[in-house]
Amino acid sequence: MAITGDQRLLKRINRMALVRLVRSQPGLSRAELSASTGLTKSTVSLLVQELIDDGWLREDSVLVTGAIGRRPTPLRLDGRRLVLIGAELGVGYVRVVSMSLDGEILYRDDADILAGAAPEVVLKQLAEMMAEHINKLVDGGREILGIGVGVSGAVQEGTGVLVVAPNLGWRNVPVKAILEASLQLRTKREFPLFVQNDGDVAALGEVEFANGAVGDPLLFVGLGVGVGSGVVVGGRLLLGTRGFAGEVGHIQLQRNGPKCTCGRMGCAEAYFGLQAMADIRRCSISELRQKAAAEDPQTLEVLAQAGRHLGVLLHNLWTTLDPALIVLGGPSCRLGKAFLQPARDMFEELAQEARLEIPPVNEARFGELSVAVGAAALALHELLLPI
Amino acid sequence: MAITGDQRLLKRINRMALVRLVRSQPGLSRAELSASTGLTKSTVSLLVQELIDDGWLREDSVLVTGAIGRRPTPLRLDGRRLVLIGAELGVGYVRVVSMSLDGEILYRDDADILAGAAPEVVLKQLAEMMAEHINKLVDGGREILGIGVGVSGAVQEGTGVLVVAPNLGWRNVPVKAILEASLQLRTKREFPLFVQNDGDVAALGEVEFANGAVGDPLLFVGLGVGVGSGVVVGGRLLLGTRGFAGEVGHIQLQRNGPKCTCGRMGCAEAYFGLQAMADIRRCSISELRQKAAAEDPQTLEVLAQAGRHLGVLLHNLWTTLDPALIVLGGPSCRLGKAFLQPARDMFEELAQEARLEIPPVNEARFGELSVAVGAAALALHELLLPI
Repeated sequence: MAITGDQRLLKRINRMALVRLVRSQPGLSRAELSASTGLTKSTVSLLVQELIDDGWLREDSVLVTGAIGRRPTPLRLDGRRLVLIGAELGVGYVRVVSMSLDGEILYRDDADILAGAAPEVVLKQLAEMMAEHINKLVDGGREILGIGVGVSGAVQEGTGVLVVAPNLGWRNVPVKAILEASLQLRTKREFPLFVQNDGDVAALGEVEFANGAVGDPLLFVGLGVGVGSGVVVGGRLLLGTRGFAGEVGHIQLQRNGPKCTCGRMGCAEAYFGLQAMADIRRCSISELRQKAAAEDPQTLEVLAQAGRHLGVLLHNLWTTLDPALIVLGGPSCRLGKAFLQPARDMFEELAQEARLEIPPVNEARFGELSVAVGAAALALHELLLPI
Repeated sequence: MAITGDQRLLKRINRMALVRLVRSQPGLSRAELSASTGLTKSTVSLLVQELIDDGWLREDSVLVTGAIGRRPTPLRLDGRRLVLIGAELGVGYVRVVSMSLDGEILYRDDADILAGAAPEVVLKQLAEMMAEHINKLVDGGREILGIGVGVSGAVQEGTGVLVVAPNLGWRNVPVKAILEASLQLRTKREFPLFVQNDGDVAALGEVEFANGAVGDPLLFVGLGVGVGSGVVVGGRLLLGTRGFAGEVGHIQLQRNGPKCTCGRMGCAEAYFGLQAMADIRRCSISELRQKAAAEDPQTLEVLAQAGRHLGVLLHNLWTTLDPALIVLGGPSCRLGKAFLQPARDMFEELAQEARLEIPPVNEARFGELSVAVGAAALALHELLLPI
């Protein structure tokens, strides 16, 4: 990855650096941008004008400071024109959100998908939902900047092929190619479209749509039928060589532990995957939720046991990655304190045994929309990546 | 981290990009460098001449191709002038190597340190050893490019403070500051000096002094009294927020497992740390080595058990990080197949249960010198990092 002297690349780097700076510090003036970047004031003025024309930035109302002379104009992200679309291809459902550049959710939709439906059928359903959003947004005068898709499985970067998705039962599905073709057919247009693992995009969502600075590395742990994670370090996703990094549901927590759907024994997912917990309680997932809400003692004990195993996983990931912030997301979070508190307690207990302090463990900012919002963040992230 | 238009920075980026390119593809010509970087031929010529004058590059003898016209001059790293010094602050010993820019080991030294010696005493001993190397090299007309130090503990980036080193019993020792002062006193000169965790520098050594391209991410697992790891991804170290990433010896492998020196139970290190294995066999570390060499059945069984636990750790790290290559290093590797084969077998067995293929697992390229050579690589890495 040689960095070249090519002027267009340098311009793109500088443009995106300005957008990133204004995004992280809304209200910066052109003079402050010049000071922060080392770019001359005339270069900054030129680039800022382009970014305003293109819909990325807008001028805010001028602050009255009482000082003499021309007042600096504060700049902000422009949330009015450019839109990001984020989609989640989940286990049993699809979901689409439309978001403004500054992180406001404009529209959202979701629908169940039939168990065992063919990839083509599911992706057609998803493309239709996305096309509806696009048409509505374009009719309203908006411009689609890019589209992101988060899927429950390992994705090959670049090609957007879903290599394997155990909980969907899919293998080698060209998700990106199918969705692009399907969207072009429905909207007669082309859009930048990016596909990535659900845990990874959810981690990006926490970083890209954060209010201000966020811990680095950031570790997102997605808790559902499957258990997976995403790590953002130095502003980049940690994907691994095949896109399989973060498959932490298959970390072995105990030798000769319970059998996992993957074929191995004692995997984290076999202890506290959502289906595994329901199986331990001998009920369905929705019954598990009801029993947990009704504080059924046997269910609470199952959740506490499962939570303690989650605590061990969090400890092990912390030991490996030393994140500044851990974020928990995914449907299992709706089981609430009965599941999450024992996890925190176990994590803290293990750290205290070594006289160490654990990092903050937060719940996901966008709740059940984490993956869809994260997918929108993926599109933004890819578009802002200069090199 | 805004990328600026500053011309000096851009020049440094381009200079280092050229060095990196020539290093990974020895024999490139100026024209090929121009094509690879997008820099004009005149800019490349100017920068290459500077790099030759500064001792980074040299012109190789011209290939006779039979073609008409001026033949392109192949460029290589210049191993003749610039030298890197790498030091290891180990558990019970210190070690120093001097290396040419192209990876040749010029001098090496090591010495035992007294158990429980104060940090100042040990660092003085290390500084003396380094100063001897420096004086010898400078007398021989060499120029010291930089110095790296690998230490068995967690290091705060930037300040070079060793925050905690359980196996040395040190806490908050300003290793970088002490060594800098001590070296200045002894050599009357200043050198760029970098300090980092031993597993981290060993990982860098595998990348920076590789013959050709190397797997990305690369995971190095250091096996000794302590067990730690280093990860290089996208050419950068994964350090974590406090420099504690890779403390994988304290991943819990089993609930209520054996007590670890850190205070926790069931840590990886309590199963296959070098001291732990000797304790299980009820002998000293050197006796363990002798018994293993003599193929004592009881010892072989201890090593096999320990190796299987190592296999589980490798599996768990693979699941988390998806490395393209795993490298095993550290003193326990000298226990050989009796320890390492059961680890490989267990790793492979777990992967096969999920019908997945494991990545290559190699032994460290520089054997027992991995950390010292890695420390030299750290200095090179930091000097080549453009931003």
